[in-house]
Amino acid sequence: MPTPSAPHVTPSATSTPGPHDLPDVSRLVVGVLGGTGPQGRGLAYRLGRAGQQVVIGSRDAERARTAATGLDIPGVRGADNTETARDSDVVIIAVPWEGHSEQLEHLRGELAGKIVVDCVNPLGFDKQGAYALKPHEGSAAQQAALLLPDSRVTAAFHHLSAVLLLDQAVERIDTDVMVLGDDRESAATVQALAARVPGMRGIYAGRLRNAHQVESLVANLISVNRRYKAHAGLRVTDV
Amino acid sequence: MPTPSAPHVTPSATSTPGPHDLPDVSRLVVGVLGGTGPQGRGLAYRLGRAGQQVVIGSRDAERARTAATGLDIPGVRGADNTETARDSDVVIIAVPWEGHSEQLEHLRGELAGKIVVDCVNPLGFDKQGAYALKPHEGSAAQQAALLLPDSRVTAAFHHLSAVLLLDQAVERIDTDVMVLGDDRESAATVQALAARVPGMRGIYAGRLRNAHQVESLVANLISVNRRYKAHAGLRVTDV
Repeated sequence: MPTPSAPHVTPSATSTPGPHDLPDVSRLVVGVLGGTGPQGRGLAYRLGRAGQQVVIGSRDAERARTAATGLDIPGVRGADNTETARDSDVVIIAVPWEGHSEQLEHLRGELAGKIVVDCVNPLGFDKQGAYALKPHEGSAAQQAALLLPDSRVTAAFHHLSAVLLLDQAVERIDTDVMVLGDDRESAATVQALAARVPGMRGIYAGRLRNAHQVESLVANLISVNRRYKAHAGLRVTDV
Repeated sequence: MPTPSAPHVTPSATSTPGPHDLPDVSRLVVGVLGGTGPQGRGLAYRLGRAGQQVVIGSRDAERARTAATGLDIPGVRGADNTETARDSDVVIIAVPWEGHSEQLEHLRGELAGKIVVDCVNPLGFDKQGAYALKPHEGSAAQQAALLLPDSRVTAAFHHLSAVLLLDQAVERIDTDVMVLGDDRESAATVQALAARVPGMRGIYAGRLRNAHQVESLVANLISVNRRYKAHAGLRVTDV
């Protein structure tokens, strides 16, 4: 309840941006490479359900179309990876870490000029559970940035539970999405995309050089899930 | 409201442990090495305010006593690092990363048999902000475990804002503490300590080999704080 006598609480054009001061992204087409895996399908489902036009990409166009049809959301269709990249404004990379560099190199031309959102978590698994792999380039996102010099690479959507994303009975995804990027405008676009999903916020969380810990924190969330039989995510407090 | 006809919602001895099923730690003495810095003083203040016996440690006993007196909490006293380690059941390591290995080696004998809680974040800073340093041993916590083979090393308390911890007007610290450790009993003790502070929960978040990303995520929280003028922390959702 701002009053003239309390100008210090009146919002102004120069006030600190909140996580909701973001561009309108409702008309952007979002592609999801590796969109037939659980994480990719989950993201496609939630963004499509929020009204976004989404293209699920796969090396096999038929598999992509089957996955899209399975989600039963009007705005979600399937295509091969090349067409997906070409037809999208924003392209989410949800491929397995094992094929990451190869697939990005292959699509370098189609991804030029696009906002790329890497959500890959390089992890290893053994008897004691999950552990972080350290990519030579520092992180999956930094590898993407090196392989795609003409794209605007960001990193986000690492800490979401595919189980919750794909559960039609779940109305809200009460989890924050840490968005990393060296280009402020691209990061804001990705934050805005995250904010399209009810319950979700896109929180700017630093430059790509700080992506490794965000990616590998998934190993810790897997430990949390095992211990508490949960589908853990993260909220950033005080924002 | 469990009823005989709904046994699946009735809590039982075999149900999944929640973050509140923890040992009673109210009689343990907690030492804080590096307790004169903001993070150390903040933790000492919050634990002392929660009724814990706390010893603030410093290389200079007089500085430690001054810091303890400044907090104005009956259960908090100051001592040199050696006495602090010797007199405590649980010892929090809150020294700067630069002196970490040296100080731990020096106190190896006094820390034998104790639960050690490493909360050190190895970070570098430049014009673009904070970035993760990668210790040779993998993380500060793993370095501690190697240097203190006779201690029970855990890692926790990385993501707390010293500003909030030290603000006497702040009643609750609404942030979760990720607790890492290879020994379940030690981790549970540290989780219980965290849970002594109103608003705080101690969440088991994996083994020490997954400490690096938890430590270095502080670089991301610093970016969050800059962008949103916040004192950001984390909550684990669905637990």
